[in-house]
Amino acid sequence: MLIILQSGAPDDVLQRVVERIEQLGMQAHISKGEFRTIVGAIGDENPQLPDILRSIEGVENVVPIMKPYKLASRDFHHENSTVTVGSATFGGGAPVIIAGPCAGEDRQMVRHLAKTVKANGAHMLRGGAFKPRTNPYSFQGLGEEGLKILQECREEYGLPVVTEITDPRNVELVCRYVDMLQVGARNMSNFVLLNEIGQAKKPVLLKRGPSSTVKDWLLSAEYILSGGNKKVVLCERGSRGFEDEMRYTLDVGAIALAKVDSHLPIIVDPSHAAGRRDLVGPLALAGLAAGADGIIVEVHTCPDKAKCDGPQALTEEMFAKLMQQINHLKDAMAVMVS
Amino acid sequence: MLIILQSGAPDDVLQRVVERIEQLGMQAHISKGEFRTIVGAIGDENPQLPDILRSIEGVENVVPIMKPYKLASRDFHHENSTVTVGSATFGGGAPVIIAGPCAGEDRQMVRHLAKTVKANGAHMLRGGAFKPRTNPYSFQGLGEEGLKILQECREEYGLPVVTEITDPRNVELVCRYVDMLQVGARNMSNFVLLNEIGQAKKPVLLKRGPSSTVKDWLLSAEYILSGGNKKVVLCERGSRGFEDEMRYTLDVGAIALAKVDSHLPIIVDPSHAAGRRDLVGPLALAGLAAGADGIIVEVHTCPDKAKCDGPQALTEEMFAKLMQQINHLKDAMAVMVS
Amino acid sequence: MLIILQSGAPDDVLQRVVERIEQLGMQAHISKGEFRTIVGAIGDENPQLPDILRSIEGVENVVPIMKPYKLASRDFHHENSTVTVGSATFGGGAPVIIAGPCAGEDRQMVRHLAKTVKANGAHMLRGGAFKPRTNPYSFQGLGEEGLKILQECREEYGLPVVTEITDPRNVELVCRYVDMLQVGARNMSNFVLLNEIGQAKKPVLLKRGPSSTVKDWLLSAEYILSGGNKKVVLCERGSRGFEDEMRYTLDVGAIALAKVDSHLPIIVDPSHAAGRRDLVGPLALAGLAAGADGIIVEVHTCPDKAKCDGPQALTEEMFAKLMQQINHLKDAMAVMVS
Amino acid sequence: MLIILQSGAPDDVLQRVVERIEQLGMQAHISKGEFRTIVGAIGDENPQLPDILRSIEGVENVVPIMKPYKLASRDFHHENSTVTVGSATFGGGAPVIIAGPCAGEDRQMVRHLAKTVKANGAHMLRGGAFKPRTNPYSFQGLGEEGLKILQECREEYGLPVVTEITDPRNVELVCRYVDMLQVGARNMSNFVLLNEIGQAKKPVLLKRGPSSTVKDWLLSAEYILSGGNKKVVLCERGSRGFEDEMRYTLDVGAIALAKVDSHLPIIVDPSHAAGRRDLVGPLALAGLAAGADGIIVEVHTCPDKAKCDGPQALTEEMFAKLMQQINHLKDAMAVMVS
Repeated sequence: MLIILQSGAPDDVLQRVVERIEQLGMQAHISKGEFRTIVGAIGDENPQLPDILRSIEGVENVVPIMKPYKLASRDFHHENSTVTVGSATFGGGAPVIIAGPCAGEDRQMVRHLAKTVKANGAHMLRGGAFKPRTNPYSFQGLGEEGLKILQECREEYGLPVVTEITDPRNVELVCRYVDMLQVGARNMSNFVLLNEIGQAKKPVLLKRGPSSTVKDWLLSAEYILSGGNKKVVLCERGSRGFEDEMRYTLDVGAIALAKVDSHLPIIVDPSHAAGRRDLVGPLALAGLAAGADGIIVEVHTCPDKAKCDGPQALTEEMFAKLMQQINHLKDAMAVMVS
Repeated sequence: MLIILQSGAPDDVLQRVVERIEQLGMQAHISKGEFRTIVGAIGDENPQLPDILRSIEGVENVVPIMKPYKLASRDFHHENSTVTVGSATFGGGAPVIIAGPCAGEDRQMVRHLAKTVKANGAHMLRGGAFKPRTNPYSFQGLGEEGLKILQECREEYGLPVVTEITDPRNVELVCRYVDMLQVGARNMSNFVLLNEIGQAKKPVLLKRGPSSTVKDWLLSAEYILSGGNKKVVLCERGSRGFEDEMRYTLDVGAIALAKVDSHLPIIVDPSHAAGRRDLVGPLALAGLAAGADGIIVEVHTCPDKAKCDGPQALTEEMFAKLMQQINHLKDAMAVMVS
Repeated sequence: MLIILQSGAPDDVLQRVVERIEQLGMQAHISKGEFRTIVGAIGDENPQLPDILRSIEGVENVVPIMKPYKLASRDFHHENSTVTVGSATFGGGAPVIIAGPCAGEDRQMVRHLAKTVKANGAHMLRGGAFKPRTNPYSFQGLGEEGLKILQECREEYGLPVVTEITDPRNVELVCRYVDMLQVGARNMSNFVLLNEIGQAKKPVLLKRGPSSTVKDWLLSAEYILSGGNKKVVLCERGSRGFEDEMRYTLDVGAIALAKVDSHLPIIVDPSHAAGRRDLVGPLALAGLAAGADGIIVEVHTCPDKAKCDGPQALTEEMFAKLMQQINHLKDAMAVMVS
Repeated sequence: MLIILQSGAPDDVLQRVVERIEQLGMQAHISKGEFRTIVGAIGDENPQLPDILRSIEGVENVVPIMKPYKLASRDFHHENSTVTVGSATFGGGAPVIIAGPCAGEDRQMVRHLAKTVKANGAHMLRGGAFKPRTNPYSFQGLGEEGLKILQECREEYGLPVVTEITDPRNVELVCRYVDMLQVGARNMSNFVLLNEIGQAKKPVLLKRGPSSTVKDWLLSAEYILSGGNKKVVLCERGSRGFEDEMRYTLDVGAIALAKVDSHLPIIVDPSHAAGRRDLVGPLALAGLAAGADGIIVEVHTCPDKAKCDGPQALTEEMFAKLMQQINHLKDAMAVMVS
């Protein structure tokens, strides 16, 4: 860590900086330049040290050198890691396709969709039982009933299932029915929930919050990893932007950046980013071309009867066409890497 | 609600739009223009209708006319509402000052700070017992021990206390010790938590999420209000921006806008917005001048020993000076309004 | 255009709204609902009308129905348009590759790079002679000398050349040397410059401003098109975001959206978006997969001797590898479309 | 400047870093730590050095220590500077009030408004003759005819006049008629225009671009200052955000931050930030409370006849009320500072 003192800072500032560094078990290394004095703090970086040092009147800037996350960092785990859910392997080379309705709202429809997406090559089924909705008067999901529908489809069609978890009290319940837990974008910084999930045994799909940096995202992954659950898959789903003709700004740069900084697998959610189905296909392909290890996409038999997020759901025909495109892209990507 | 069909949309699009509107108990009113057909949906707006209509292929745009929140809206409650916490009244004309340390980390220090902020005119004490920290390795608060320290100060100095709640399982526990529950910015869209708090009896301080629109914020308030808890105070604390020399962008326009759209009291948190103490004073005054009903500000005896957010904590001297400035501003604002 | 009156707006508001609509040659069509009165303005939409109507006290919202641009709109030109520059055709199916140094700073180096990028399959050469630099003390380009270097390379290697124009007084000068004029992101809303370029004969590459909506971008294109210059190619190069580990947020959604709203060809600039060379490849591929008709990318023989933007310049080896990847992707995309 | 090498960077990286530093006339100072090697570059910081060093493969980060601007920096000019325009002094303690119509579109109306704003205490008149409009079909201003109207008002009512300049070829023309040149937000990074204005003799009002950092803004000021024109006043007018109920996000933190980093006077433009007149008053007061040295505000006799930006123009009554509020605030601020 480097600590830059203000130009003309009095001598006792330097003294306090050195004191605090040594109190936290690090060593101070002082360089006096023409315009500024710089102190290097050497040793194992304490996560509280930057704030403590910035608090000292006379300190201009503190520059951490080490990343604040460790288990999520590529510095400590050079190879790409893989996460396996049933027969699907994230990070294993071929893109994993997760598809299904936004919410599991009607048994017949979910069964029909499971069958269709499976037939078109999807590897996993998605579906919400507990829906976090901005509007308190909107449909909030079927709860345990929805989980049962998902479980039934999973058994019948051999598709592992992922569903969102929103309540730390539901971890055990949800784990009973599904194969992978999803932390939604709104809960990326719900540390109480992350702590509970860190103790679960199921793989986790961790969406990026709409105004979270890649560093924040990897720190949320670190919460889960440091709790003992090593099976984390990241998911980019768009950050908050100013464009009012689509819902979020899909940040393909964040996918590429997270691949540089972390060894964890990453997938892309084009549906929530776009908020409208005509843009879902291009965003899915863009995410995969940027290096994503898979996609999670919403499909609906009859989107205008969907109880949530219908405008972004692909029709079955659109999904079938997208799967063909992904297959072509996959082959091209495989050649590129080899 | 207005539904605008795409230019040249086939006839059955209009038919499906009308059908869906009528299925949800509203009436359809059709206007065929030269370039576009517009349908007005008349009646009590169903929160699911916009998404359902946008899902129909051939619908270009859906424009809701009513706000999606009701209890939080000024349309249904014209006068400013007030919320009373002990001897402090939010929205009662004079600004309410909440001050104290970021975290209640040391009994002696919190007691000393409580005494100091009280002496300088603060009306309430703040302090964190459960801290949501981005970094899993940072100090996470003292938990119940921290609540006890706050309670002790409250009794000794007659200062009502507000503290953040992060876990839906802790509502009862926290209510036992404090006078007001704070929902932090990261939890503004934690609907599980909002639902629990909606059933509590304590007043609530609801911070705006860093990428939430004013509409999203008022919908989160609606969660609490519709649960039965009518004592909601809003708090603006900055939204995520691109400037890297301060932490967040304090959005004074959101304060003014929320005053137009809602009757709820609003305060401002300049400390978390700025992230550095030299900007806290100007932001506090700006928030009040924009119409805020109070401030919540971090003060620390010795910021460079603080275990969290030291760089943004005012020293005791800075706080005393800010209180003087606020008193002058308060008098000027009182004359303005009268 | 739809005009929504405030609930309980007095009668004379409606009267003024109708008056203004009729004064501007449109017809008013009134619908009185239970909660709101809505007025439809029928006829050729006047660009000043929305602001005029919003100015009336008692008007809640004005919803334009027609896009404010016409020549750039797909509504009036359904097929994709193509723009030809020498032997390169934007929008013609195969991606156009533009490559070269940030600035044309050294004759030998530019010649060497032109030869290299040509050998690797680039279709056009880029290079800056007039550089808009944030810092007044940075290298500002060689001016006309730089143009001469580009022209020499163009003749020797048969590569059409694109260069940025920043001064409306230089249009004639620059047109003498190059094949395509580039409007940089900082000048997307420099309407004085756009007007001059609208009268030039050369094709134009119009970059999107870092905080411009797609609508703003297409309105800037409209400035050029309505001046008589129909050869506009759009270029997405990232919008301003909050992530501090890369320079801008490449917005692949804007590429897909502009393809829906406009018939103009679009390319992608991964170099300026990323600001660092390790992310340039993934962003280039993502842009193409989202539907871009080409890329413009910075390459340098020895990036750490570059006078500007060295960190984002690909080395020659990286460019060669990217071209191989693009060729694979191109083949896959060709199959997808067919 | 500090250069941080990647962990495990080969020896020749260090060698190249040292070489480049010495080539540009600085000295290198090497510290080898446990995890990283750090190089300090000592001497006069070259603006090209950071990019050159970041371009070297194996360099992880470059941290400049000095600000990249000098003439605009408080480091080199500790006291607040003042700028005088006629009888108005920016930065002289009392807020300077600039008011008038968006565009000078009608001689009688501008004369009437000049008289009214003067009577209510305004110190300067604003009015646009050359309007930069997003839409090419919108009213673009009266040009020289508009300048003449402004000049007439200036002479009749003794109000110095500020108007926007958009074309580098018009500097001489505009200087003939007005007292202060305004650089609009869209032209903040139009360096060609800034260079011309740097050579003019008139004071300059430099608006902040909607996605510009405070550093970028001060670098634009540096363009003008380094050209020889020392009379620069900054103006905050909102940055681009995601809230769709107002036009821009007024960034009062940027005002406070620019006051810390620079000695230049700063005013606030609440009209363009809000985009709607009901928010203009609160934003004006917030800007002043944050430390702004004045405001520039749009007033119109009959906003719904305005040819541009009517929705944000204050009525004459609203302006009179705002002036009363500002007078109360001014008195309070004067006491605070003393």
